[in-house]
Parts: sequence; structure tokens; C-alpha cells
Amino acid sequence: MGEFELIERFFKRNQPPTLDGQAQPAINSVVLGIGDDCALLRPAPGMQLAVSTDMLVEGRHFFADVDPAALGHKALAVNLSDLAAMGAEPLAFTLALALPPERARDEGWLGAFAHGLFALADAHGCALIGGDTTAGPLNICITVFGQVPAGQALRRDGAQVGDDVWVSGTLGDARLALGALRGEWTLPPDVLASARQRLERPTPRLTLGQALRGIASAAADISDGLTGDLGHILKASNAGAAIDSKDAFHLIAFCAGPSSASDSFDKEFLLKLTLTGGDDYELVFTAPPSVRAAVQAAGKRAAACVTRIGRIEEASGLRLIDARGRATPFAARAFDHFA
Amino acid sequence: MGEFELIERFFKRNQPPTLDGQAQPAINSVVLGIGDDCALLRPAPGMQLAVSTDMLVEGRHFFADVDPAALGHKALAVNLSDLAAMGAEPLAFTLALALPPERARDEGWLGAFAHGLFALADAHGCALIGGDTTAGPLNICITVFGQVPAGQALRRDGAQVGDDVWVSGTLGDARLALGALRGEWTLPPDVLASARQRLERPTPRLTLGQALRGIASAAADISDGLTGDLGHILKASNAGAAIDSKDAFHLIAFCAGPSSASDSFDKEFLLKLTLTGGDDYELVFTAPPSVRAAVQAAGKRAAACVTRIGRIEEASGLRLIDARGRATPFAARAFDHFA
Repeated sequence: MGEFELIERFFKRNQPPTLDGQAQPAINSVVLGIGDDCALLRPAPGMQLAVSTDMLVEGRHFFADVDPAALGHKALAVNLSDLAAMGAEPLAFTLALALPPERARDEGWLGAFAHGLFALADAHGCALIGGDTTAGPLNICITVFGQVPAGQALRRDGAQVGDDVWVSGTLGDARLALGALRGEWTLPPDVLASARQRLERPTPRLTLGQALRGIASAAADISDGLTGDLGHILKASNAGAAIDSKDAFHLIAFCAGPSSASDSFDKEFLLKLTLTGGDDYELVFTAPPSVRAAVQAAGKRAAACVTRIGRIEEASGLRLIDARGRATPFAARAFDHFA
Repeated sequence: MGEFELIERFFKRNQPPTLDGQAQPAINSVVLGIGDDCALLRPAPGMQLAVSTDMLVEGRHFFADVDPAALGHKALAVNLSDLAAMGAEPLAFTLALALPPERARDEGWLGAFAHGLFALADAHGCALIGGDTTAGPLNICITVFGQVPAGQALRRDGAQVGDDVWVSGTLGDARLALGALRGEWTLPPDVLASARQRLERPTPRLTLGQALRGIASAAADISDGLTGDLGHILKASNAGAAIDSKDAFHLIAFCAGPSSASDSFDKEFLLKLTLTGGDDYELVFTAPPSVRAAVQAAGKRAAACVTRIGRIEEASGLRLIDARGRATPFAARAFDHFA
């Protein structure tokens, strides 16, 4: 199959997806989609354009035998998660795809990949507006575009001393699944199945991100692990933080929670998984104590659990406060894609 | 070197580049650059955002031993060329880079790549606003952003029956060099050196593209070969074209022109190189005969030679008209990245 036929068959759609009222802005914002030298976008008046790029490489970000529908979902989800962390609403994306010959010929694989990709894109009214395909080792590079009212983006550099530190959802499931798939530990089949869903089909917290505009002082998505991504906020905001370990326990992976696999692992291990695991695509954010009720209400509106786990302090670095109130420094080392 | 250190050392710049007045809009348009979950862009009022993505793979788009500064230049140039073909002015770009371990450690290679990239970016006031780096087989994916006044983009679907077909510059040099580097033919060293410059350091026709706004009815950049890219215009515009071979001869590669290597090759071969070679990054465009003087004036303003080579016709397909006025159909097959 040639390049142009491949695009035509799997990635070009004659009709924009049918969207509900909420997602309507995307359609109005795309002036020109696939098929010209450039696509043309028109953000709504008063809106700024939020842009993010992620590149996924076989063997590094996903296993060669991963379900292609899940891969299509995740390739877009990790980008949408960056929009969520800025409080932006999705508009469109471009897809650049390097395919080895056996993949370019594999219509089942391509069809499933496109299906997983478009299912998530359609759910958020996010249109594919262009891209590139080429032969080469499997590589997926998506650039995503969203819009956010001028001055309202949730940046990393806005955390203030005294702010609370909040996290959405639960953390560590993805790392729990990854370790099992790598043979680092074993999991009961039902726990692995659930954890694997979170590794392979993460849910970008778009509604929560938009609900936090005007409330959160800073935000980031958790892709490199909580301590790493909170560390990015601390560095950008020139501050430190203390995390209460008893509160952080509430974040422990859904799948490793009290009702399932927790007996197999000790609490220290689970806490480490939670704080440093990565690939969670939840949000970590800060907000002044005066808006706690507003944060809880935003979580409710977005159907996302939000947990307060600590506070921003003047002293730089990240400290974990144990049950007896003792502070131990915590290396805020993020996942490094070259390590 | 870790991911974050690599970005910090080679790709993050504390100061936006110093720009002359002409390039100023880019700085005003970038609200937030590298270092957050997303970058934020604000196109000027009344402007639409033009977006294009290109992915370059080692062994497919460049040789493994290519000069890294030339590679940095070309990776951005092929994207800027897409903006040129829309009549857009550059604002910003993102860079996603997969690097094998030996490249990630090679500071000389990385420094030269970044130097070539930023030299071209700075010349056009185009700011690096974000991206991604990861370990993996060498892959460079750039997404570029430009702005164009609403309704004035040079699209592919605007060619009208009776319009002239025009081409900027000369064509075929890049293919001439590629063939010599692949051992398909030999070239005198000075001719190879010149042709190689055009293969490795193409000049995006940004000034010409912007000068053609309101004049050209359709445009595309020549990346896949003249017949292929003109074919895209014809398909989008639902029309055909006749090319006068005597006029097309004027496009013959600068380096293979009468003063140099032309003796080594027959005219048929040179014409084929010109019509189908690819990797030229010149513009092919259409305009009504009534604006011929305006097209010439736009070329002068942009310091780019423009040549009229044929006309848009109702009958679909592409025909080459020989010296005796006989038409022969020409397969408008574009370069296929999977062929």
C-alpha cells in the first residue's frame, strides 16, 4: 500500500465526526483539514492556542505486541493529557507515523490503530487535520492543539507558598501493570487486567483541567511520576513542598488497593509505586486553602476524585512527612527517557 | 546525558532570538515557550494559524553520515516550505527527536544539529516552543506554525481552467546530487558540491509565498517532484494541465544547466529529472493570465526567478507538449514514501 492510499484509507475522513454541543468549537476552529500543504486553524476570539507534542517509540513507550487499538488510544491520550494540564479544550491534532514495511501492509493493525485513535478523538471533538507517513522503524508523533481563554492557562510556575497540593484519581496502576508485564513481579490475572487498562488506555483529565481554570494556581499532568512532575512545578515556581505520607496513601493504585492485591505487597513498595511510578496521566495541581470547596466542586463536576496530599513551602525540595510528623527528603527524580 | 539535560543544553534558549522588524510578529505571538505541559500561541487578530508536520527518518530522508548542521537546517526547511506554499509567515515550531544512545552522547553532533536548526529558525523569526526527546532509532519530527490573513491562504484547490502554471527557481538539483551520492551516475566534483547544497540545504520560498497572496489561485511546494505536486493541485482543483516542454527546459537544474554538467546527460534525462526529481522545495502555483505582471513583480520582490511553463485545462491529467506541438500524457506519479 502506498503512502497516499494508506492516508486515504485509514486516516482521511470525508465528514467531520458528529459531535454533541459541547465539542462543537472544534469543528468551527478547523478551517482546512487534511490534504493541503498546511492545515488552517482559527481559535475562537479571545482564545490562545495550546500546543503539545509527544513521540512514542516501539520498545520504549509500548511493547511490539500491544493491542493496536490501545496504542492508537494512548498515542492521543498522552497528548490530550497535556492539554488537560493547561486547562485547555481540545481542537485538533496532527499525526506523523513511521511504519516498517510489515506494519504498512497489515490492514488489520492499521485499521485497529485508527479505530482506537479516532474513538478517543471523537469523544473529545478533536479533529485530525494533517500529518505525515513514511517508512521507518515504528514511531508515532502526535501534535495536539487546544484553546484556552487568554490568561487562564494552568501553568507550572504559579504555585505559591501555603498552597495545597492536590492530585486527581489514583496513581501507580500503570507501573504496577508494567512491572508485571516485564516480569518484575506477578499479579493475580484480574488485577493485571485492570491495571493494564490504566497502562494502555489512560483517561486524560480534560474536564477536570477546564473546571480548575481560575481555581488552581499551577498544574501538570503525571507522566513521569508524581514526584517528578510535582518537581517540575516546584522548580518553575521556585518553591518546595511537603507531602503527608498518610494522605498520599489515599492515592495508592486502584488495582493495588485494600480490596485486591495489597496483601501481596508491603506498604512502602506501594507508596513508592504511587509517588514515582509514572504513566498515570492524572493531574497534580496546587491551589490556595481558601478554594478547597471550589476544588472539591470542580472534582465533582468532572467526576474525578481529588485528594489533598500536602502543601507548598518556601524551602526548596520535596519532603515526605511520616505518621510521626518526621520529614524525610525525597529525591524528586523524574522518569528519564534516556536512563 | 539525560533527557532534561539534553534539552537544557542544546535546545532551550533563555532569550528569544534577536530579530529584525520584519520577523517581530513571531515574538509577540509566543505567549509561553518550552518548559510547561503545552506552549501557548496567540496569532495576531484576523490571522489564521497554518500548521504542518514532517517526519524525517535516517536512511529514508537523509544518509546516516550527513552533516548534522545540514540535517538541522533541512528538517526545519521542509516544514517552512509548507508554510511558504500556503503564503503563511512563520511563527514557531515544535521538535520531537528520537535519538539512538550513540547520538544522545555525541555532543558535537547535537551541537551542530542545533546550530543548523536555529540558524534557519532565527533567519525567519521562528521560535522553538516545545517538543519531546526520547531514545529510539533516529527520527526527527517537526511541526511548524505560521499565520496568514483569514481567507488569503494559497490552497491547492483554487486552480481555474485557463490559469497559467508557474514554477519558482530551478528543479532537479537535489535529485542530481542524490543519484550521484547513491552511485547511480557520476558528477564533476564542483557540480556535485553545488547540487548537494540544494539537496542538503534547501531554501524555503517564504517571501515568494507571502508575495503571491491575492495573486496566485493555487500553490504547492515541490517536495515529491513537479508532476506529483502539480498533480495534487490538479486533483484538488478537479482540472488538468498542459506543460510546454520547451518552457519546462528553463527549469532544468541550475547545476545541470548549459554551463556545467549538461554535456554529460541527454536532454530527455535532464527533463525527467526536472519534472519528477523531487526534494526541490520550490513552489508550483497557478494564476490567471491577467496577473502575469504581478507574478513577475512578486518574484522580483522575493528575489526568486519565476517561470511560466503551461496552463490549466478542463481535461483531467497532465500532458507534455513537445516542440512540434504534440501532446503526450505524462504519469503524474508523485514520489511515494513507501515505494
